[in-house]
Amino acid sequence: MRPLTSELGSAPVVVLVRPQMGENIGAAARAMLNFGLEHMRLVAPRDGWPNPAAVAMASGAGPVLEHAGLFSDLPGALADCDYVFATTARVRGLVKPVYTPEAAMTEARALIGAGKRVAVLFGPERAGLENEEVARANAIVTIPVNPAFYSLNLAQGVLLLAYEWMRQTTETPARAENLAGTDFATGLEVEKLGDHFEEKLEASGFFFPQQKAPMMKLNLRNMLTRWGLTRAEVQTLHGILRQLVRGR
Amino acid sequence: MRPLTSELGSAPVVVLVRPQMGENIGAAARAMLNFGLEHMRLVAPRDGWPNPAAVAMASGAGPVLEHAGLFSDLPGALADCDYVFATTARVRGLVKPVYTPEAAMTEARALIGAGKRVAVLFGPERAGLENEEVARANAIVTIPVNPAFYSLNLAQGVLLLAYEWMRQTTETPARAENLAGTDFATGLEVEKLGDHFEEKLEASGFFFPQQKAPMMKLNLRNMLTRWGLTRAEVQTLHGILRQLVRGR
Repeated sequence: MRPLTSELGSAPVVVLVRPQMGENIGAAARAMLNFGLEHMRLVAPRDGWPNPAAVAMASGAGPVLEHAGLFSDLPGALADCDYVFATTARVRGLVKPVYTPEAAMTEARALIGAGKRVAVLFGPERAGLENEEVARANAIVTIPVNPAFYSLNLAQGVLLLAYEWMRQTTETPARAENLAGTDFATGLEVEKLGDHFEEKLEASGFFFPQQKAPMMKLNLRNMLTRWGLTRAEVQTLHGILRQLVRGR
Repeated sequence: MRPLTSELGSAPVVVLVRPQMGENIGAAARAMLNFGLEHMRLVAPRDGWPNPAAVAMASGAGPVLEHAGLFSDLPGALADCDYVFATTARVRGLVKPVYTPEAAMTEARALIGAGKRVAVLFGPERAGLENEEVARANAIVTIPVNPAFYSLNLAQGVLLLAYEWMRQTTETPARAENLAGTDFATGLEVEKLGDHFEEKLEASGFFFPQQKAPMMKLNLRNMLTRWGLTRAEVQTLHGILRQLVRGR
């Protein structure tokens, strides 16, 4: 059996309750591993366990299936869990807090940080979780979908919760700059590029008529600053200027 | 042709560049519609267009396909777009800002609010977008995935971006309370329930030994407050207390 990379309890356990299609169990395993979740539990899978169709679909996520716990009922699967989220689209006749996926995973992170074991339940493909199953959860998670077209498949639901878990646990800057080995140009470099532009354009008679020249120069300087030029781009533009004049 | 519910330009346009499998185009249409995106464009789909496999997979999202624009090259598909995000996992040798899905859709919402048309590009299943295609985008979007298992399929990528778009445009409270027709109990109701507990427990000899009684009563009151009881639950507990005494 290939090993997992994370310990039980370090991230939410994904519990698939009465899943029907093996393919969906395999796709759920892939979705989990895409975002760093590895601990799966299965409650009474319709087609028995292990399931060759699940293994075929999981491919690289096979270890998630190999380590998946098999339980005959939900209380058994939750016996060692401290806090349980039930994923359901419909609001039921049960008094229960309802979280967004993001808020649920924020809460899960806090609970896990406090040493609790957290589980997230997903119901069978057709009908979702039964009320008796939701009643055994501490809270509901509802994925906000288009009310006019809300059918998400099992693996997509798992994918979105797992994605929100990874968002909680990684520090990806909202916007980074891929500089591809170069640096941003300094103010002086941009200034000198502006001088070079003015010199070549002056010589070519670009600043015409005379009275519009100051505004044209102002716009030129503003444009060069606004672009956020890199050093490599400054060199490219110097070369373009030189070559255009030379080639005339 | 069945109508769409949203106008072009009110949400990002999803551009599938050289998609290979019709099934994936149909699944992408479903993922879009799940989160309220309807405007799809196709650039040189491998198996031609229309594609029966796409239609079969899309089912309820058929109108997205019926209205999809077909283009022979990327510049044609982007001719009327003001700002373009390229979805790619790999950082390329191109100077370009790199956004998370959330930050990209925050930016998209701001741009659309300012009257701009925004597109999000997705590459073919096997190899993703070419550098020549990414160079035509204003920014990169990278989905944060487990580096040890990062393969997301086309429809999953579309699903996550569409989900982030819907998160930008809907005001779902992070945590709501599903009260199922009842209300939370008032402080007075909880207080009276505590009195009832104390009365019945006192009569049954629960508060023993005597010197521990104050702490036991304190813990009882704290527990009843901490539970966040509803009115219905308060009534249930009154009934339980009465019946347990009566049944002795």
